[in-house]
Amino acid sequence: MTFHPTYSDHVLMPDFRFAKQHLAEHFLDAMTAHVRTVKRLEEPKIKAHQTDIEKLEQALSDLRTEDLPDYHADVPDLYFAFNKRLESRLGQDTVSFLRMGLSRNDLDMTVYKLRTRDLLLKAISHMGNLRSLLLDGAETHLKTILIAKTHHQPGQPTTVAHYLCAIDNALSRDMDRLFDAFARLNTCPLGSAALAGSSHALDRDFTAKALGFDAPVSNTYDAVASSDWQVEFVGVMQSIALTLSRFINDLIDWASRGVYVLGDGLVQGSSIMPQKRNPVALEHARTRFSRTLGSSQMVLYSSHNIPYADLNDFGPDIQGALISLFIQMDGGMALLGACLEEGHFDRGKLAREASCTDTTATELADVLTRDCNLSFQEAHRLAAALVKETSAQGRTLQEATIKDLMTIGGPEIDATFLHDALNPNAFVRRRSGVGGPAPDTVKAHVTVARQSLSQNLDRLAQLLSGFAQIRKNLANPQ
Amino acid sequence: MTFHPTYSDHVLMPDFRFAKQHLAEHFLDAMTAHVRTVKRLEEPKIKAHQTDIEKLEQALSDLRTEDLPDYHADVPDLYFAFNKRLESRLGQDTVSFLRMGLSRNDLDMTVYKLRTRDLLLKAISHMGNLRSLLLDGAETHLKTILIAKTHHQPGQPTTVAHYLCAIDNALSRDMDRLFDAFARLNTCPLGSAALAGSSHALDRDFTAKALGFDAPVSNTYDAVASSDWQVEFVGVMQSIALTLSRFINDLIDWASRGVYVLGDGLVQGSSIMPQKRNPVALEHARTRFSRTLGSSQMVLYSSHNIPYADLNDFGPDIQGALISLFIQMDGGMALLGACLEEGHFDRGKLAREASCTDTTATELADVLTRDCNLSFQEAHRLAAALVKETSAQGRTLQEATIKDLMTIGGPEIDATFLHDALNPNAFVRRRSGVGGPAPDTVKAHVTVARQSLSQNLDRLAQLLSGFAQIRKNLANPQ
Amino acid sequence: MTFHPTYSDHVLMPDFRFAKQHLAEHFLDAMTAHVRTVKRLEEPKIKAHQTDIEKLEQALSDLRTEDLPDYHADVPDLYFAFNKRLESRLGQDTVSFLRMGLSRNDLDMTVYKLRTRDLLLKAISHMGNLRSLLLDGAETHLKTILIAKTHHQPGQPTTVAHYLCAIDNALSRDMDRLFDAFARLNTCPLGSAALAGSSHALDRDFTAKALGFDAPVSNTYDAVASSDWQVEFVGVMQSIALTLSRFINDLIDWASRGVYVLGDGLVQGSSIMPQKRNPVALEHARTRFSRTLGSSQMVLYSSHNIPYADLNDFGPDIQGALISLFIQMDGGMALLGACLEEGHFDRGKLAREASCTDTTATELADVLTRDCNLSFQEAHRLAAALVKETSAQGRTLQEATIKDLMTIGGPEIDATFLHDALNPNAFVRRRSGVGGPAPDTVKAHVTVARQSLSQNLDRLAQLLSGFAQIRKNLANPQ
Amino acid sequence: MTFHPTYSDHVLMPDFRFAKQHLAEHFLDAMTAHVRTVKRLEEPKIKAHQTDIEKLEQALSDLRTEDLPDYHADVPDLYFAFNKRLESRLGQDTVSFLRMGLSRNDLDMTVYKLRTRDLLLKAISHMGNLRSLLLDGAETHLKTILIAKTHHQPGQPTTVAHYLCAIDNALSRDMDRLFDAFARLNTCPLGSAALAGSSHALDRDFTAKALGFDAPVSNTYDAVASSDWQVEFVGVMQSIALTLSRFINDLIDWASRGVYVLGDGLVQGSSIMPQKRNPVALEHARTRFSRTLGSSQMVLYSSHNIPYADLNDFGPDIQGALISLFIQMDGGMALLGACLEEGHFDRGKLAREASCTDTTATELADVLTRDCNLSFQEAHRLAAALVKETSAQGRTLQEATIKDLMTIGGPEIDATFLHDALNPNAFVRRRSGVGGPAPDTVKAHVTVARQSLSQNLDRLAQLLSGFAQIRKNLANPQ
Repeated sequence: MTFHPTYSDHVLMPDFRFAKQHLAEHFLDAMTAHVRTVKRLEEPKIKAHQTDIEKLEQALSDLRTEDLPDYHADVPDLYFAFNKRLESRLGQDTVSFLRMGLSRNDLDMTVYKLRTRDLLLKAISHMGNLRSLLLDGAETHLKTILIAKTHHQPGQPTTVAHYLCAIDNALSRDMDRLFDAFARLNTCPLGSAALAGSSHALDRDFTAKALGFDAPVSNTYDAVASSDWQVEFVGVMQSIALTLSRFINDLIDWASRGVYVLGDGLVQGSSIMPQKRNPVALEHARTRFSRTLGSSQMVLYSSHNIPYADLNDFGPDIQGALISLFIQMDGGMALLGACLEEGHFDRGKLAREASCTDTTATELADVLTRDCNLSFQEAHRLAAALVKETSAQGRTLQEATIKDLMTIGGPEIDATFLHDALNPNAFVRRRSGVGGPAPDTVKAHVTVARQSLSQNLDRLAQLLSGFAQIRKNLANPQ
Repeated sequence: MTFHPTYSDHVLMPDFRFAKQHLAEHFLDAMTAHVRTVKRLEEPKIKAHQTDIEKLEQALSDLRTEDLPDYHADVPDLYFAFNKRLESRLGQDTVSFLRMGLSRNDLDMTVYKLRTRDLLLKAISHMGNLRSLLLDGAETHLKTILIAKTHHQPGQPTTVAHYLCAIDNALSRDMDRLFDAFARLNTCPLGSAALAGSSHALDRDFTAKALGFDAPVSNTYDAVASSDWQVEFVGVMQSIALTLSRFINDLIDWASRGVYVLGDGLVQGSSIMPQKRNPVALEHARTRFSRTLGSSQMVLYSSHNIPYADLNDFGPDIQGALISLFIQMDGGMALLGACLEEGHFDRGKLAREASCTDTTATELADVLTRDCNLSFQEAHRLAAALVKETSAQGRTLQEATIKDLMTIGGPEIDATFLHDALNPNAFVRRRSGVGGPAPDTVKAHVTVARQSLSQNLDRLAQLLSGFAQIRKNLANPQ
Repeated sequence: MTFHPTYSDHVLMPDFRFAKQHLAEHFLDAMTAHVRTVKRLEEPKIKAHQTDIEKLEQALSDLRTEDLPDYHADVPDLYFAFNKRLESRLGQDTVSFLRMGLSRNDLDMTVYKLRTRDLLLKAISHMGNLRSLLLDGAETHLKTILIAKTHHQPGQPTTVAHYLCAIDNALSRDMDRLFDAFARLNTCPLGSAALAGSSHALDRDFTAKALGFDAPVSNTYDAVASSDWQVEFVGVMQSIALTLSRFINDLIDWASRGVYVLGDGLVQGSSIMPQKRNPVALEHARTRFSRTLGSSQMVLYSSHNIPYADLNDFGPDIQGALISLFIQMDGGMALLGACLEEGHFDRGKLAREASCTDTTATELADVLTRDCNLSFQEAHRLAAALVKETSAQGRTLQEATIKDLMTIGGPEIDATFLHDALNPNAFVRRRSGVGGPAPDTVKAHVTVARQSLSQNLDRLAQLLSGFAQIRKNLANPQ
Repeated sequence: MTFHPTYSDHVLMPDFRFAKQHLAEHFLDAMTAHVRTVKRLEEPKIKAHQTDIEKLEQALSDLRTEDLPDYHADVPDLYFAFNKRLESRLGQDTVSFLRMGLSRNDLDMTVYKLRTRDLLLKAISHMGNLRSLLLDGAETHLKTILIAKTHHQPGQPTTVAHYLCAIDNALSRDMDRLFDAFARLNTCPLGSAALAGSSHALDRDFTAKALGFDAPVSNTYDAVASSDWQVEFVGVMQSIALTLSRFINDLIDWASRGVYVLGDGLVQGSSIMPQKRNPVALEHARTRFSRTLGSSQMVLYSSHNIPYADLNDFGPDIQGALISLFIQMDGGMALLGACLEEGHFDRGKLAREASCTDTTATELADVLTRDCNLSFQEAHRLAAALVKETSAQGRTLQEATIKDLMTIGGPEIDATFLHDALNPNAFVRRRSGVGGPAPDTVKAHVTVARQSLSQNLDRLAQLLSGFAQIRKNLANPQ
């Protein structure tokens, strides 16, 4: 077997290195699980060679503690390099019990799923950390007024807590999507051989369980030909990346005017502009989410307009893209987490911003409608006129008096009544309905969100400890 | 209010037409639900005007049976055109009960979700149809041998049924994804007003239920600012489009050599080449999935690097893209369904293809390993040598004799034994493990798949009838 | 010919309507050019039927002034509907001179190129308009200081003119790209028949010239199978969309704090927030560029992993996507143009912003290096320290005194000297090297840019008038 | 300066390693060019320190032959690491002549352009190789009949040469696009400093020339803020990737049925299926083009909806994506080149395919129209009927007799005349118009294509040698 140098240089060698770096343990796990399944076959030959198979198991275990084989021109991939080493130690006959009913097709796909499963769990863990930070921030800022914009203009007062809980709400849905993607991925291809299963009566339920899968894939062709689990993985990454790109957009906007202040370890100066203090950690997080979105297209293009069959496109050739996509996501989430941990809102600046907008106009209109027997339309017009009037005089709406209101044709109302209607804190307190920003409402929401998050993290912890146990079990001969 | 002609021509007018065509009923549903919620407020003014509010409800109901308003320069959108018509009939004071605590922000987002909910249910229905056709085809072809390829080369025998069940398996996961997307989308923004909810004590649980949502969105900022439900929608569309692009790739390959034959109503001739009979329906289906994938990027780009706030990007401006994406998906699924209904596998050609490949070599190696005490590696080498030998003599592997096998150094085995090992039907029958192609195995799988599909379709039917009842309820004043 | 209703409803009917709306004139142009080419064949039959061919030409001309045919189940497309109408008038024998050596393959591809050629020219025209507006703005604001940001933080003073010229520079490259795409597209497929040309000696040079193409495509297979001209078209659209998305990002940022003010016809209020004046025209422009980027993927996916052959993917099925992409681009450029025409920079606010930043620190470091014999590194440190010192005292760098400088260890320099070093206007004036913001430098740059733009617009005008003449010529029988 | 560990781990450290691996030489080139520009300033200080500046030049040259610095926590990037080493040797005052008027903004952008320029030239070189192989193949197969498909069905006879020249035609346009992208990229940002140029009178024309750029970027803000050169780069890569994905689709189709045969060094066997010989090199090439297309989106997303200003998004953060995209393109082109070099068409199989299709029906209709006074429509119907008739009798159209023709109502024609009309070789010979497949026509086309290619390769060679000279010049102190 002599490969064309272009083929070796551009395909075999880099793929070998990649497998060594990212997949070796998963290969040994899957190979071990297969050998244990073979060992249980009710075939006379198997019965007669239980000791040999145990030697093979032991040899597989030994490989874990050795240096991994290097690429050589005479073996096309890491799996065959493992085989070669095993054969040199145990002989071909013994290693044959590994090869029986096993194809690279089902083996590879199993390895890729094991790897992606790990990435999903790591993403869930990151998400848990971000959500905790958001909920912490919310509890700190239950009463901190934030003038929320719509269409890039000051819209209404809300609180920092309300905003952070909104982000947490969106992320909680992404967390659910991650768990869903995990559950749909977590079926085992092994035992599917090339595509049609094996004529050896391999117990695929046993294999699946041995590797921590919920079940075997229920159609052997599906097991080696489907790539939808990759597409769902990138679909969830797209969702997370977009929501976080939007959150970062706001953080950068706030940072650019000093409302949000990053710690010193997250900013950089300039080589030429002495006054600079750039919030670059946020910028670098943004770029990671842009690249997450872009690299997801590598996965989608690779499964487009190809046969529904075992192929390299969504097999070995896309694993690098999946991992490099995840490195972007991982970096983005880590940087964002750091910016939340070592950053703070400047309450003074936020308060000053709150005091000089006209964003309580909505409540004034509501009050005039509710309490003064005006139609909403008329109240809306009066509020708009009052904004215009005070603005023309260089004052904010919050400084408007009952005289101002009457001047423009409004009703005579109590001064305190007007003052309260125009006060951002009152604005927020009065919005205590389901999902509203009133501090008590948000506080209760945070409590519920923490419970839900805690359940999710418990589930994650159980999965992680279960898989750790499974790996330990696979690493030790039985 | 005089808009710039460029703004009217490029934004307001086309958006108005779009809303008339696609969203009018949903607007009236949401407006009605809001008015009913206002009617229940414990405010003195509301108590005093129950009759007026009922008139408003009746007027909303009347709008459903009338011609929809046309675009005029003085109203920016369909909602305000409805308002204007209502005011001209009932006066501003009465229509005020519609405007109280209502923003276009929460109203629009509610309407968009209602619309997308319908699209999701339609996609589920399509998927049910495709899956039924696949399972029908599987039952018809439990024993029809298909030489499955891997890496574009004949790999192993399986059956048409096994292949179709693999596609069904993948689609069943997409069906689950559609239901998951539906469940995550199905929360109600209404009552969130601009972003902070209202100081009117609107009963958002009531509103949500009135519109068939499972619950109100639990944070009012999230309700108007999040676009992840759109991203999940396109994520699922991407998944479906990719799997179907691959299925179509195979169907076209089969059609191009006559193994799969489309009905006459699905092929086209040529304007210049008299002999032509092109399987264009499949080609047009393929293009629709390509465009589904492409147009999904419109949705993703539109939520990228924008503030987390109420905006046009994922609001009015993306609804056309969501619908035109769905038109592609809808057309693709419909065309593919037609090609499955009015197309058939040519059993004769499939049988001829099965008889002239060497794809049973795997089983020969398995047999030699299992029964002749050879190592798999040695058996694999012998099988490869036998393929080479018979091929050099212009024969297929299936025609190999025990003499051939012995000539290349193989063991002496029984002739029937060898013949069975090389027979494609036997190959398939022997693969009866979990997920394998053995006819009985697949038959049992189909039964299970049909049950699962049936449960999904029952759930769909319940949802559809529930929503129909809700719409009827909203269309009639209470 | 009875098509499956799904095929008619999802393919034939919408395609027919699309062709009527967007392609009819181009079909008649191409058909006429083909008939004129046939008329010139040196075949006895052609010689003998010159009068018949002239009748055919006249009949084609007549079709232009009639209502276009409607879709009927018995004709698959507009071309055959034209044929049918012609045959009903002239008989089959006469219409045969249209069909000779003509395939829908080359005809369609010619029509699609003619259409896209128009879109490219329209884009160039739009680009000319935008560039003129930018250069006008530059001339108006040669001295208007703009504090340019880097990494979202105030960086250095420049001028509005310098910024606008930078955008113009980028757009001038896109204009070149549009012309390049035009030149590469502008070769004629007609005469390529199905893919191998015709055995009739059609004069393809004549046909190409008749339709305003620069030459025939020099390989007939290439003519019907290549889609790279579409890919280049969307490639240029991507480039324009990205640059303009970035320009709009800045305009929106400026508009959100009142530095850039849109005319009343380009803003919208709120249904619930009385104080609102949203710069929505910019937001809608942004969304159009997002959708341009997204829909470009429809074109790319449609040419991915398909045979290199005549196909529907990049033929009839992608034309709608090309046009809907262009509608986004067209709308985005039109809206942006309106925002430049009816919008202005608030000089007062810009001046206030200029006066309160520390962005002249770079020049202070430059001055200390150049004139005080300090190393740049030391000068940079001193400038940074001075920023910190004045900031701690609540003053801006511009208010720093020589005493402040000496306090932190700086050299004793002349007060005027220091004042000039810290003045934004002086900062800009001193940067008069190639491409710098000094008013005279920018003024000279604008002059050159205007000349270049003018040449481009002349070239555009010549192309447009040439094509108008060609169309007139084709519409009238010769 | 202590950076947050997350920031160091996810940003600074990997960026430093990346710069060492990919950008170090370009950094030294650009820094040297800048120092030489500073040396020419007409400032007294500069005049006085010519010797120091020469020492700095020498030190920069020395850095080229040393081990590159490693990442340390106290320097943020490679540029500062170089600075630090220089300062440790020469002292701050001398190194100050490097820092004057230099920003990382213009330096980085210069370095990135230099790097991408190299990638473009490498792509052109690859393209030249592929085109040479295609034209070689064309000359070898001027008369080898290939039955070309349209819509996945046999369409018409053409030749392998004609097909390969079509691909070459498309690639020649991509080659032009590469040169255009090169020309538009090849302007020099250096001297633009942070964004506004410098108050030092740096001779930017000199700098540009020193680095092999055609001119300085003519607006300093544009120089540091524009990313369109990256977008054009990926736009051309998209075009190449799509055309080659289509070519590979055909090669794989041909390889899958043995019409195209890959050399042994480019195929792989199976771990389980003994008969396998998979054309995987083509498959791996396909996946590289899919990933090229996908990763291009990383670049586009990174320039989307960000300010038009100096930023990390299209600066340091996107360079890895540009290079990894190019690695895909490079690998894909290399693998495809190998498959063309070590692969061949099986003339026997092609001839057999040619003999058993009905694809000369078009010529039969042409002949009947031209020579038998039938309308094309009638001739088309007769040809179709003849196909149907012979097919029903189990014969091919090529075996049709004059009797067959007359039986279905056709005219009586000479037997040789009919035979020639149905012969694939004659079909091709008769299509000798511009761009047609007739062997002499294609031969002439190849000659022209070779000339054009040769001119392009000469231009490439001149550019490469020019840049080599420039690098040599920069590496040696003057």
